[in-house]
Amino acid sequence: MNKNYYCVIMAGGVGARFWPMSRTSQPKQFIDILGTGESLLQRTFQRFLKVCPPENIFIATNSIYRDLVKQQLPEISDFQILCEPSRRNTAPCIAYANYKIHQINPNATVVVAPSDHVITKEDEFTNVILSAMDAATHNNWLITLGIQPSNPNTGYGYIQFDENEVYAKDNRLKKVKTFTEKPELEMAKQFLQSGDFLWNAGIFIWKLENSMRAFKQYLPEIDELFQSGLSYYNTPEERDFIDKTYPMCKNISIDYGVMEKAENVYVLSSEFGWSDLGTWGSLYEHLPKDKNRNAIVGRNVMMYNSQDCIVNMPKDKLAVIQGLDGFIVAEDSGILLICRKEDEQQIRQFVTDVSIEKGEKYV
Amino acid sequence: MNKNYYCVIMAGGVGARFWPMSRTSQPKQFIDILGTGESLLQRTFQRFLKVCPPENIFIATNSIYRDLVKQQLPEISDFQILCEPSRRNTAPCIAYANYKIHQINPNATVVVAPSDHVITKEDEFTNVILSAMDAATHNNWLITLGIQPSNPNTGYGYIQFDENEVYAKDNRLKKVKTFTEKPELEMAKQFLQSGDFLWNAGIFIWKLENSMRAFKQYLPEIDELFQSGLSYYNTPEERDFIDKTYPMCKNISIDYGVMEKAENVYVLSSEFGWSDLGTWGSLYEHLPKDKNRNAIVGRNVMMYNSQDCIVNMPKDKLAVIQGLDGFIVAEDSGILLICRKEDEQQIRQFVTDVSIEKGEKYV
Repeated sequence: MNKNYYCVIMAGGVGARFWPMSRTSQPKQFIDILGTGESLLQRTFQRFLKVCPPENIFIATNSIYRDLVKQQLPEISDFQILCEPSRRNTAPCIAYANYKIHQINPNATVVVAPSDHVITKEDEFTNVILSAMDAATHNNWLITLGIQPSNPNTGYGYIQFDENEVYAKDNRLKKVKTFTEKPELEMAKQFLQSGDFLWNAGIFIWKLENSMRAFKQYLPEIDELFQSGLSYYNTPEERDFIDKTYPMCKNISIDYGVMEKAENVYVLSSEFGWSDLGTWGSLYEHLPKDKNRNAIVGRNVMMYNSQDCIVNMPKDKLAVIQGLDGFIVAEDSGILLICRKEDEQQIRQFVTDVSIEKGEKYV
Repeated sequence: MNKNYYCVIMAGGVGARFWPMSRTSQPKQFIDILGTGESLLQRTFQRFLKVCPPENIFIATNSIYRDLVKQQLPEISDFQILCEPSRRNTAPCIAYANYKIHQINPNATVVVAPSDHVITKEDEFTNVILSAMDAATHNNWLITLGIQPSNPNTGYGYIQFDENEVYAKDNRLKKVKTFTEKPELEMAKQFLQSGDFLWNAGIFIWKLENSMRAFKQYLPEIDELFQSGLSYYNTPEERDFIDKTYPMCKNISIDYGVMEKAENVYVLSSEFGWSDLGTWGSLYEHLPKDKNRNAIVGRNVMMYNSQDCIVNMPKDKLAVIQGLDGFIVAEDSGILLICRKEDEQQIRQFVTDVSIEKGEKYV
């Protein structure tokens, strides 16, 4: 295992899309949404154990989830948890991780990845990451992972590559032409047809020095803020410094702040059974289904005359469900949600209503 | 209050029709199925406090529910609870109560009523019962309450009266011509049209001596069994005697064993908002409904785009329900049921399946 390889897992999200399972007190990355016995964060951590030593894996999360991270990953030490005192999107989070890792090992090559995605072909994932780590170590590139799109999904960003600039040692690695934010359906269809667009998986690989150089160039005000704490990283003063400095950063994504502006950006075209699990629909795709196409998490769920449902019940809860067609039925912490799958975008509104009518403790 | 008036509330049923709220460990009569804060048994007890002194009210139940009765009716003393060691339908239960009350007060007039019915016009109910008690005290009649039918319900038994034999002091009280078990729909329609049929509410009023005489005549073998325990009633030996004797009785209803055979049977034609709550449908009728015709029990139930549902959630449970039309959604003791209202007859099958697949503790 390469001692210069590092990993930053971003686990600060507070998404309520899978409410009631995901709530502010327990967002998606911390829950066993697939019913495998491990949370998405735990699975992500396990995946990166094949890439770098455990002590080289850092978890960036919101301060309020520090204990949750320690509880779910008891094998990591406190200094490996980066606590964000406020939400500032991905660029400040990565700038912070850069400085912290730089203090330990300036020769690091780093992979940065979200904690709440699902990846079904884990061996292929390891293969892709190791190839990208190797390419990033030997080139001045900022590498991002692109997923071979299977449908004109309008929920993802797209990356267009240049077929003529391909890495000699791995022809899956190509120079990026353009980044596109979530497109309209018609445009997504054209992207798919053109054959040179990939989904943006939000997974980045780079040599630390190249990432830091890019911040200095494209986000100098964020860089300066973290630069000012050079003497604090990995000391008892780090937390105070971050608590004071982090909120001063502007809120900006690494895609918008760096990747879309930089010149030396490459994308590795991958296919490892990826989903960002952004919707119940995408979760449904990743769960095993019974003969009536019901995807069921929970040991004591009995279905009668029901089809195309996604049911997520606490492990031992007995549920008898009859006559439902295309519904989400989910329960967690004593909160029950029943909602048509096709109306899942309304869940955000339900959560807002619940918060207003019943109180913050439920959301 | 007339000291000779007594009441026997029959609370031995084990119906699973309202599963998961009603289960073997907690049948319908013990649950707050209307969400009023009182169980059906408690409401029944309250109603009879307007008829006779509390110490004259007896509760007949299965031995396994003794503690449940004591818990729900802490004001009654142990000797007022008649424990049936096995299920033998209504006739043995009433024979037992007769002997027990006779030992205390041979001049009693008794009303016998189920514990699990709903009655919305309680003042009218009191009025009807008191009129029947008075008539029963002064005549050798066995009186049953008949409900003015509002529809050709095939779930009830029917009683035909003789319009020409009416009690002078209360013209609602008429001699019975025939009893009919649950009819087919066509026959029920004819009953309704004829105007001389009433629903059988299963509520009986008689002078104790007349009831006991009827048992001696029509069910002598049951009468002899209880006669043999004369010296035990209301003594510490009563329980042992009953545990031994009760199971020897044949399983027979008071309707079939006595009322349908006796000559001096009268019916009091009543209208006090009665239902035996035999189905979710009948419960639905008795619950208040929102503007989308949803009947909701539970403080934290939020409905979106849902109509004609009946929702019964634990008091504080948060449930968000979207897109359901004509469903039962019920939870109790951590068991969730979702079922189309029109398919509620399948619930019995679910309960059987649950008992086989998941164990007796759930049913």
